[in-house]
Amino acid sequence: MTALLWPGDERAGELMSDGAVLIAMVAAETAWLAALAATGVAPADAPRDLAELVGPGDLTEVTGRSEAGGNPVISVVALLRERAGPHSSTGRWLHRGLTSQDVLDTALMLCARDVLDRLRAESATQVAALAELADRHRDTVMAGRTLTQQAVPISFGIKAASWLQGLLDAAEELTDLTLPAQFGGAAGTLAAAAEVAALSGSVEPAKTALDLAARAAAALGLPAGPPWHTARATITRLGDALVRCTDAYGRIANDVLTLSRPEIAELSESAAAGRGGSSTMPQKVNPVLSVLVRRAALAGPAVAAQLHLAAAAAVDERPDGAWHTEWSALQLLARRTVVAAAQTTELLAGLIVHTERMRATADAAAAGLMAERRSLADLGPDPGSGSNDLASYLGAAEELVDAVLDRAARYRGVGS
Amino acid sequence: MTALLWPGDERAGELMSDGAVLIAMVAAETAWLAALAATGVAPADAPRDLAELVGPGDLTEVTGRSEAGGNPVISVVALLRERAGPHSSTGRWLHRGLTSQDVLDTALMLCARDVLDRLRAESATQVAALAELADRHRDTVMAGRTLTQQAVPISFGIKAASWLQGLLDAAEELTDLTLPAQFGGAAGTLAAAAEVAALSGSVEPAKTALDLAARAAAALGLPAGPPWHTARATITRLGDALVRCTDAYGRIANDVLTLSRPEIAELSESAAAGRGGSSTMPQKVNPVLSVLVRRAALAGPAVAAQLHLAAAAAVDERPDGAWHTEWSALQLLARRTVVAAAQTTELLAGLIVHTERMRATADAAAAGLMAERRSLADLGPDPGSGSNDLASYLGAAEELVDAVLDRAARYRGVGS
Amino acid sequence: MTALLWPGDERAGELMSDGAVLIAMVAAETAWLAALAATGVAPADAPRDLAELVGPGDLTEVTGRSEAGGNPVISVVALLRERAGPHSSTGRWLHRGLTSQDVLDTALMLCARDVLDRLRAESATQVAALAELADRHRDTVMAGRTLTQQAVPISFGIKAASWLQGLLDAAEELTDLTLPAQFGGAAGTLAAAAEVAALSGSVEPAKTALDLAARAAAALGLPAGPPWHTARATITRLGDALVRCTDAYGRIANDVLTLSRPEIAELSESAAAGRGGSSTMPQKVNPVLSVLVRRAALAGPAVAAQLHLAAAAAVDERPDGAWHTEWSALQLLARRTVVAAAQTTELLAGLIVHTERMRATADAAAAGLMAERRSLADLGPDPGSGSNDLASYLGAAEELVDAVLDRAARYRGVGS
Amino acid sequence: MTALLWPGDERAGELMSDGAVLIAMVAAETAWLAALAATGVAPADAPRDLAELVGPGDLTEVTGRSEAGGNPVISVVALLRERAGPHSSTGRWLHRGLTSQDVLDTALMLCARDVLDRLRAESATQVAALAELADRHRDTVMAGRTLTQQAVPISFGIKAASWLQGLLDAAEELTDLTLPAQFGGAAGTLAAAAEVAALSGSVEPAKTALDLAARAAAALGLPAGPPWHTARATITRLGDALVRCTDAYGRIANDVLTLSRPEIAELSESAAAGRGGSSTMPQKVNPVLSVLVRRAALAGPAVAAQLHLAAAAAVDERPDGAWHTEWSALQLLARRTVVAAAQTTELLAGLIVHTERMRATADAAAAGLMAERRSLADLGPDPGSGSNDLASYLGAAEELVDAVLDRAARYRGVGS
Repeated sequence: MTALLWPGDERAGELMSDGAVLIAMVAAETAWLAALAATGVAPADAPRDLAELVGPGDLTEVTGRSEAGGNPVISVVALLRERAGPHSSTGRWLHRGLTSQDVLDTALMLCARDVLDRLRAESATQVAALAELADRHRDTVMAGRTLTQQAVPISFGIKAASWLQGLLDAAEELTDLTLPAQFGGAAGTLAAAAEVAALSGSVEPAKTALDLAARAAAALGLPAGPPWHTARATITRLGDALVRCTDAYGRIANDVLTLSRPEIAELSESAAAGRGGSSTMPQKVNPVLSVLVRRAALAGPAVAAQLHLAAAAAVDERPDGAWHTEWSALQLLARRTVVAAAQTTELLAGLIVHTERMRATADAAAAGLMAERRSLADLGPDPGSGSNDLASYLGAAEELVDAVLDRAARYRGVGS
Repeated sequence: MTALLWPGDERAGELMSDGAVLIAMVAAETAWLAALAATGVAPADAPRDLAELVGPGDLTEVTGRSEAGGNPVISVVALLRERAGPHSSTGRWLHRGLTSQDVLDTALMLCARDVLDRLRAESATQVAALAELADRHRDTVMAGRTLTQQAVPISFGIKAASWLQGLLDAAEELTDLTLPAQFGGAAGTLAAAAEVAALSGSVEPAKTALDLAARAAAALGLPAGPPWHTARATITRLGDALVRCTDAYGRIANDVLTLSRPEIAELSESAAAGRGGSSTMPQKVNPVLSVLVRRAALAGPAVAAQLHLAAAAAVDERPDGAWHTEWSALQLLARRTVVAAAQTTELLAGLIVHTERMRATADAAAAGLMAERRSLADLGPDPGSGSNDLASYLGAAEELVDAVLDRAARYRGVGS
Repeated sequence: MTALLWPGDERAGELMSDGAVLIAMVAAETAWLAALAATGVAPADAPRDLAELVGPGDLTEVTGRSEAGGNPVISVVALLRERAGPHSSTGRWLHRGLTSQDVLDTALMLCARDVLDRLRAESATQVAALAELADRHRDTVMAGRTLTQQAVPISFGIKAASWLQGLLDAAEELTDLTLPAQFGGAAGTLAAAAEVAALSGSVEPAKTALDLAARAAAALGLPAGPPWHTARATITRLGDALVRCTDAYGRIANDVLTLSRPEIAELSESAAAGRGGSSTMPQKVNPVLSVLVRRAALAGPAVAAQLHLAAAAAVDERPDGAWHTEWSALQLLARRTVVAAAQTTELLAGLIVHTERMRATADAAAAGLMAERRSLADLGPDPGSGSNDLASYLGAAEELVDAVLDRAARYRGVGS
Repeated sequence: MTALLWPGDERAGELMSDGAVLIAMVAAETAWLAALAATGVAPADAPRDLAELVGPGDLTEVTGRSEAGGNPVISVVALLRERAGPHSSTGRWLHRGLTSQDVLDTALMLCARDVLDRLRAESATQVAALAELADRHRDTVMAGRTLTQQAVPISFGIKAASWLQGLLDAAEELTDLTLPAQFGGAAGTLAAAAEVAALSGSVEPAKTALDLAARAAAALGLPAGPPWHTARATITRLGDALVRCTDAYGRIANDVLTLSRPEIAELSESAAAGRGGSSTMPQKVNPVLSVLVRRAALAGPAVAAQLHLAAAAAVDERPDGAWHTEWSALQLLARRTVVAAAQTTELLAGLIVHTERMRATADAAAAGLMAERRSLADLGPDPGSGSNDLASYLGAAEELVDAVLDRAARYRGVGS
């Protein structure tokens, strides 16, 4: 991974790392081999846990042999076959009925599942933290700002609630995503799977082939379905959902960055030991988490668009380059989203709200913040009666905060 | 609209045209004004159909006055007020409680609804046409191709079914989209709405403000909810769904373009009178619909990504430029998607399938297309028994076609 | 044009408007027809100014007939031929030897030339304004800010000089761009041109064909050269240069937006009558020019990337959709860049620098701003001797401002 | 690096790898330290080759400590200081006067220089190979194709020449790029550098600071100049030039992919041992190099656009996230471009041209390919005289090939 140039990358651990993808490719092969035996297609001595044969320690070898086939699966299969013994039952039955796209797409779904599990956990924590902030600060008056200028009073509670809306939009979508296994064979007909079934005596080889796909998917814990070699909505929806997360995180980070400017000073990141330091200026405490979250938010959309472009450029029964652009894009997007999620969780957990400063700034700006209200006075029976009390011009902020908190409670109920 | 440089633009008619957006902005103002009166906030003589005052004929004037406010709403409101008479009841109550973002966001949702209606209609036609093709050609053998090379036999039916999967992925999502109204006032608190309610004697002005928003939304036929000024998933989901459509159309067009190359000649676009001609070569019949659909598919992802970037760059209670990038991006994406949808509908309706040529090419390539099968023979009891009959090596193609057709039938049931 | 949803669009006037592109297509045809006659290929009565026959008034008709051919040229040629009389000398010789890509690419280059002329004029004004600001404010002390936090003192002069560097980087590139004519015929061999030359008795038809291309290019004031139908660096360089302009404008606008926040208040846009108003808040004076410039800067990169994608997807002697994505992208990018340029020119001309507020903020933050200096004191013989005078810690700011001003002077010398 | 999911990555070796960037950061610190001593600012015992202290073996530690500072420089400096001994002369003087952006930007320029060196070498080989192909095949007749359909005859020589134009457009730009060092200190004023100069007794500390920057740049072999912390054309120009390379490679790969379809079979990739194999279909020889080159071409534009977005979002004296998106984007783009360059070089070196098949296809299509010519016959004195000989309808192909070959010769002269 490009860890050096993406500070915080380690927060994603092994999620969709090269090693994790390799493990997942081997798991896909293992599940298929087991299904071949379970359906009586392959002999009982064929299946084994292929993870015993090839693992992350083989990354360099696998990687170095991948270009010739255009993808890493061919070299994984070759290595597995070598190590199992090409004439052993395992070596003979391995990968029979599959195509490399089956293995790589399924592996990416397995990795994506772990990524979504992590993101859902982060979301639950974030939603709880933000709900607490929105609730606690429903009476914390501050200046609302539009187009950089002070507009009308708001509460910090309703600002937090608007952050929370974005998080919930992203989080709810994570819950809905489907990550199906991919088992279709060379051109999506399961022809080789049916053929090996027939060779083994199946009287309904097509049905056996579908059964193989269903069993292998079930063993991996993924939904089965028709192959999606060239219908890539599975991939684009995943990408869109990931970038919807970084959109939501970025929107929060932007506010923290703006409001932690010293001239505004209404929010601060928690000053963890050693964080935010400068290489040369000892006084600096930079809002580093927010900077790095914003980084991810600015970088996400183009990567997700790459996945759409791959879908749009699909052709034939497997495209000539478009598919190949997906793997790295998905890996980058997934890991960066996890990193940003973890940073956002920490950011929210430690966020310091300077309520007095909010109030003081708003009070000093009261004449401007209440100008809209004054402009409405002519509509009433008694022009000029409008109070100048900021807290009295918050409209339905309370009710809107409640509505968002209700939604958060429902999400947390579902998620728990 | 940039009609000259986007041939086929006229297929989108007035959907999300400048004129349509203007009409929708005026409709949003009309609905709000009516709600003000219906809740007793404004007097009974305030509401009127503002479309009588300002319409597409005023586009040039509205547009020319928009820069000063940074968006077109301010000039629309000014023009409405001028024409209603600034001191008339309509002129006095117009736009009270709203902010320009409310009006423009709501207007875009209204236009998007019409766009989705049209896309759903196109989808229904496309799904029917493709289901018919998939069913009719389940026994039409052709060469499956991967990475540009002949791979194993497939049927044209399963190819059509894979196109159909992509269409259904996109079409089902169109059914699920929510396009909420936006009514929040200057900073999303409904403060001005509550204020005018209070001035008119409401004892629960916050509740009245929420009621105003609910009524105005209902009058427009849009769902109500908390304001989403800076939580832009509504916009990004819409953009993602639109580009998921062009992804699916593009994938079809790519196959038509490839398979209508004269050296392959397995598909042709219907030769409508005068279509596909060249400015200089009289023999040419270019697959123009596919070319133009592919154009839209290549251009879509970057525009949808722009909407994500806007979401990711949101800040304060209204951002300083990010929001402003959304309008034109959404308009382009929506109109181009409609154009591509209509072209795809026509493409599918007229698609000519050269079944003999498919068969002849596959037969000539049979040795290669059946190589996978031969390679499996050693797994059986009787190596070499594998027939060389292409139709016998289609695996579960029949069953997979059926599965996709079932899904199409469910979609059409839902959609009807 | 999508004028309603891109406020300020009218600043671009007719530059690369649909009408301008149509006029330029007709001009390309006129120049070619004249060259045919000048080389003796066509008779003397063939050439005429085709602008008399077709012009912006025909946009609707041309546009409506463009889809069938996939581009607008075929319908322009048909209309020209109709109006000239298909059997007239003009009607018979019109477009002979050309292909539609020749006409459209050349037309876009003609329009791009006008765009660059305008941008160069704006650049000259901007550079002069910024050079003046940088020079005038070389002693205006303010807080330097990094990662949103106050860092060390700077002068507003050096900030303006850094803006100026970006402008010069963009402006110098505009000077270097080449916009060649495109004359290659159906597949870039000039075969039809040579053929008509041969038919007219040319003994060296290939040479005559090249001569035709050279003459037509010269008549249009564009450089000639080999056809570039599928070698699209001409287009991508133009796009990159345009977005380099909006990058530079955006960087300025971002600073103005930040520094005109009321809590910072170090810069303001000039408050032109009526500008920056809100639809509801009477006190608001929004930095509208900066908002709109930032909008263009956020939207530019994805459009320029579309041009690269078109180049990367080129295939055959004319691609099947990639080329078709270029036209609208180039139009959008060009017009938006011109609009942003004009807004930036006005922004710089009216920029108000609040020098006292800069100084006051910096003074109040002096302890922090000078912390780096204090941290260096241990390196000297006399720790602690460092003065706390902000103006004494500006390093080589003077010299750096001078270096940028020198560069600006050289640019202005070249440009004049 | 994400080697597993970008097959062929190893072709880029260590170019702009994490290790190379780390080495380059240390080299920038070494050069600055040496300059401090050479100007008499630091004592003579301060400088040393810091590569002795920190190197690629420390990547894990450096990376793991980078998030706190938001970039890797702070942890590199900390590690260098620890290892040099914080109280040693080296430890005390290290990094004095610099900011982390200076070190990282300069390091990226050093790595980019190596990348450009490699790309220029690949370009020279590619240009030679293509010039040879263009020259050899100037009489090899084939069908020209537009919008996927056969158009008019061309030679393979002129097709190769059009590929060559694209390569030259990219290659010439690589020669022109400037990669300046970045030395500006915390806010681009060189204040700390001037301060340490003053502390060491310099009477003209600003001049000494500029001298330090010039010396350090010279030691690294990079041009010096004013800091460009927020004027990012250096980065965007580099990115644009890289993607212009992959645009050119992709355009070639697209043609190879199309023309190596078995139904066309006019070109083949060299069948290197073991390359292009399938995981399941023994007969397959996939055009893997072209697939992987096309992959890079499809993925490049969005990454280069990310660099423009970073430039457009710059703010303050160092931006709050935009800068942070550049590093990884530049690394990806640079490495992928080198991989694609090497693959293109190999592709061109081994390209097999099936001249008989080209001719046979063109002959079989002669009636259509000559239709344009026939349509011109009415312009001559003797309608119908046009020969049907394909080779006689190549227009100025010879002359155009010569023009491109001349340009290639000039490039190779310059490059040698």
